Amino acid sequence: MRFDIVTLFPDFFASPLSSGLLGKALAKEIAIVNLINPREFALDKHRRVDDEPYGGGVGMLIKPEPVFAAIESLPMLPRRQVIFMTPQGKPMNQSLLKELAVNYDQIVILCGHYEGVDERVLNLVDREVSLGDFVLTCGEIPALALLNGTIRLLPGTIGKEESLKAESFEAGLLDYPQYTRPFVFREWEVPKVLRSGNHAEIDRWRKEQQIERTRIRRPDLYQRWLEEENQGADAS
Amino acid sequence: MRFDIVTLFPDFFASPLSSGLLGKALAKEIAIVNLINPREFALDKHRRVDDEPYGGGVGMLIKPEPVFAAIESLPMLPRRQVIFMTPQGKPMNQSLLKELAVNYDQIVILCGHYEGVDERVLNLVDREVSLGDFVLTCGEIPALALLNGTIRLLPGTIGKEESLKAESFEAGLLDYPQYTRPFVFREWEVPKVLRSGNHAEIDRWRKEQQIERTRIRRPDLYQRWLEEENQGADAS
Repeated sequence: MRFDIVTLFPDFFASPLSSGLLGKALAKEIAIVNLINPREFALDKHRRVDDEPYGGGVGMLIKPEPVFAAIESLPMLPRRQVIFMTPQGKPMNQSLLKELAVNYDQIVILCGHYEGVDERVLNLVDREVSLGDFVLTCGEIPALALLNGTIRLLPGTIGKEESLKAESFEAGLLDYPQYTRPFVFREWEVPKVLRSGNHAEIDRWRKEQQIERTRIRRPDLYQRWLEEENQGADAS
Repeated sequence: MRFDIVTLFPDFFASPLSSGLLGKALAKEIAIVNLINPREFALDKHRRVDDEPYGGGVGMLIKPEPVFAAIESLPMLPRRQVIFMTPQGKPMNQSLLKELAVNYDQIVILCGHYEGVDERVLNLVDREVSLGDFVLTCGEIPALALLNGTIRLLPGTIGKEESLKAESFEAGLLDYPQYTRPFVFREWEVPKVLRSGNHAEIDRWRKEQQIERTRIRRPDLYQRWLEEENQGADAS
């Protein structure tokens, strides 16, 4: 899978792309990441990429020309998706990441910018994605999150076991609490059921924890899970 | 403001902390960031930080001792908050970031880990925060997002104008479309109202765009905005 990241700050990505599991996946060439800077495509001698907004207002906006020129310079694989990271987009979630990992050979990620971007770049874009309802100084962090979450789902990035583990999240519930040695740490003991050796009982306890935790912490997810459970029961 | 990031991958942060506006804010000492690795606090000769889960299951978990030792080694400022980045937490949003920027002198961010962390570390933690409903290979990206979004709100990080700009998002609506030169780019023209010079009309157009865009793209935010508008109308 090929990723092209269109960014005014390519240096941002140096250490995140060489660290941890993502670094390993890129070293194994499970995916390749190409960084491209619209500034290289600005035609005037100052390589200027921003200008004042029409209609007045504060701050500067990224101009359309260098963004078009940068994206149009890229090779084009058959199944390609151009994604603009912006708080105006659809909130990123696990099913979006799964769809991207399965359906595309090339993902072009256009990083938003705190100054704003000329609206006409949307003519280049297949979809707008938001990391969440908050403002960051740059679109590089959202781009990195999308990149990481998608590459994580590609075969070979994480062991078979780890990928199984994530399914609990995909089932629409939060994870159960997990414990490792020592059995007693300071005043806190691991729940006894986990040392019972009774796997049916352990599974039941974990499922209860998942449901209860989701109900208390995330009524929105809990409601959706309940509805899907009921649909499943009706269908069977 | 002081940030302590508790991470098994301190190298991850090198280039993001020296790039763009965040890099400038740290150079101006608007905030300081300290990286601390629990592995330095593992006592056995292999500096092992993980172990098998009780009750069976796949993958390894981060042990409680090195995390406690790392966090307990930190200096303690009066208004301190310890935050664990985990998909089980409360979803991050703009009001959470604002609260952190205003109320605390020190934020300790404990990065989650794809392997999972022993539940007993929660005894050290004031709150759990989630970046969103998706799974990444590491908690370093969520930690970076929280750090960036909080430092962005500290006085001096961004110019006065830029900070005004963000208020539209805080008002609970998505942003309006923005345009810069050239007036005609390929076949796309800037909406004429923006060149009218009539500021009342421009403001009206922008507000309409915000409302309409939010209604279509984010019915959840739109509903909340409507309710707040109605409350405001009732109160006046």
